[in-house]
Amino acid sequence: MHKKLWIPGPTEVKEEVLKQQAKPLFGHRSKNFTELYDSVLTQLREFFKTEQHVLVLTASGTLFMDIAARNLVRPDGKALCCVNGSFSSRMYDAIDGSGKEAELFEVEWGKAVTVDMIKEKVEATKYDIVTVCYNETSTGVKADLKAIGDLLKNYPETLLVVDAVSSMGGDMLLPDEWGTDLVFASTQKCFALPPGLAVGIVSQAALDRAKEVPDKGLYINLEKILGYYEKKKQTPSTPNISLLFALDYKLKEMLAEGAENIYKRHKEMADYTHEWALKHGFGLFAEEGYRSVTVTTVDNRVKNLDVDALNKALGEKGLVIANGYGPFKGKNFRIGHMGDHTVEGLKELLSAIEEIWGL
Amino acid sequence: MHKKLWIPGPTEVKEEVLKQQAKPLFGHRSKNFTELYDSVLTQLREFFKTEQHVLVLTASGTLFMDIAARNLVRPDGKALCCVNGSFSSRMYDAIDGSGKEAELFEVEWGKAVTVDMIKEKVEATKYDIVTVCYNETSTGVKADLKAIGDLLKNYPETLLVVDAVSSMGGDMLLPDEWGTDLVFASTQKCFALPPGLAVGIVSQAALDRAKEVPDKGLYINLEKILGYYEKKKQTPSTPNISLLFALDYKLKEMLAEGAENIYKRHKEMADYTHEWALKHGFGLFAEEGYRSVTVTTVDNRVKNLDVDALNKALGEKGLVIANGYGPFKGKNFRIGHMGDHTVEGLKELLSAIEEIWGL
Repeated sequence: MHKKLWIPGPTEVKEEVLKQQAKPLFGHRSKNFTELYDSVLTQLREFFKTEQHVLVLTASGTLFMDIAARNLVRPDGKALCCVNGSFSSRMYDAIDGSGKEAELFEVEWGKAVTVDMIKEKVEATKYDIVTVCYNETSTGVKADLKAIGDLLKNYPETLLVVDAVSSMGGDMLLPDEWGTDLVFASTQKCFALPPGLAVGIVSQAALDRAKEVPDKGLYINLEKILGYYEKKKQTPSTPNISLLFALDYKLKEMLAEGAENIYKRHKEMADYTHEWALKHGFGLFAEEGYRSVTVTTVDNRVKNLDVDALNKALGEKGLVIANGYGPFKGKNFRIGHMGDHTVEGLKELLSAIEEIWGL
Repeated sequence: MHKKLWIPGPTEVKEEVLKQQAKPLFGHRSKNFTELYDSVLTQLREFFKTEQHVLVLTASGTLFMDIAARNLVRPDGKALCCVNGSFSSRMYDAIDGSGKEAELFEVEWGKAVTVDMIKEKVEATKYDIVTVCYNETSTGVKADLKAIGDLLKNYPETLLVVDAVSSMGGDMLLPDEWGTDLVFASTQKCFALPPGLAVGIVSQAALDRAKEVPDKGLYINLEKILGYYEKKKQTPSTPNISLLFALDYKLKEMLAEGAENIYKRHKEMADYTHEWALKHGFGLFAEEGYRSVTVTTVDNRVKNLDVDALNKALGEKGLVIANGYGPFKGKNFRIGHMGDHTVEGLKELLSAIEEIWGL
């Protein structure tokens, strides 16, 4: 039996969207492909109200972390990596692991890296990039990205690199207005598609930086990828055409619903889940004021109920949620309410949890 | 109307295989995923008679070129890049573009880089890796990979890196017996699947080298990818699950047909196409003795027929072939006879070409 995915990705994908992937293929050097790719990029620009460069990579979103390291940090430059969970920590690993200087700025899991903290850092040191996780999937903490973007407008040499993997398309994101330089996400989160593609939005300043940085490689070379698009309106390597069919289809749906309505729906799901958790005596792991609208991390430490047993029982009802991440396994549980999910579906899930645990 | 793909990738994918991608998803940290991934890797090991490390990456095969550069060439090491077409040239671009020392060893398009040429090079210079394109998609030239592998067994410090993008699964490949160290391919060629995944087979010597090389990054870090698999039997980042369903399905089919039968079928298609071309007064672009069994590049320079007009007319019959690559556009045309294609289908294609051109 299929289990409806209420995990923070891959998220539930509708049958009609899955089926888009079964369409017959054409060559990636054909006019058909140029039209498909152009349709996808045009819709992405419209949805995110951006005139920046947009690209879709055949890869998981994680590849953009290598791309940030190789393209945006100069050989003698330095990155400030704001870390408050597992995925923001990955960004540090990617930059440090690429042989670029990276400063780890870490706060406790469940807390946000605030704009004031970042202000203090950038006032003291000149960074090539600051990396921020917009929505920490491991903790359910979101960043005040608008404020961070506004701050960094005063430091034009410092580019803002944003992991928006689990919130792009579900929580408000305005790259141009907020001044992000590289923001990226995977398709298996708020786009409600299968995994396999990653979306990136790149400022002109980021592309200019990439042109200046040597040794960027080939597949992960922003200058080559965007240059190829500029010249040929295609991708330099063979892309995942099947999943681009699905992304094209989904973006039409998303534009029809409207970004504001989608963001509102996600906020409603988050509010509903937060109230439900508090009503039943759980805590909320994420710091107040910084709670994700796409992932709720419920603090289970007071009640200490058995999350594995819950998921087993949910499985028999065709549902699945996520356990706490890493060191918080059992201490937390996480509900991914993103993509196509609705408050109505959420009510069914939460009722099932109440029934199983006798809440 | 769908055009049956007789181009050298993406190749034609059967409807039942496309539909595998529409199966409902599960999480990539679930037992279901571990079983799926294990099934895929086990079948790959069986098909290629290998006990080496096997991995499937969510990316185009090109990403393995960056991986070779970042993981297998030491900071003070040197790569010998054998180049005889556009794709082998990409490997040089990846290594040189990653800031590693790369020696470009180039022969004319249409010719093979022979084992004797490589022998002369490795006798004179100590290389960390030698890169060879097993099947140059741009020219239809294959390498004598077995002989090159045998040669390099005498140089254990020199790893053999093989781009087998357009022949793995269609032309014989025995990584263990031939002594390859990294051989990789994309799914949209001889596996007859959509693009979006890349398969890699990695020797222990290559993994040991990767452990020694610094600054490998994150998503493209072989040590991390294979280490994660060793520990958790999963992939470190979210993989393309939909396409893994299709790969799992296809490998069952491939094992049922049998590697030897598949290789024989490809050889028959190549022989048939070669005879057809010569019979009608065309040439064969690839050097004799080094002709690909998956892609035939027909030399059109004597007859000088209009390839674009041919493809337009073929399109009306629901068929498509490929023009010559890059500088050979119009001078060559290429027929990709790989994956699920058969001699019967090929006869229909070639009859259509005869009819259109009045051969």
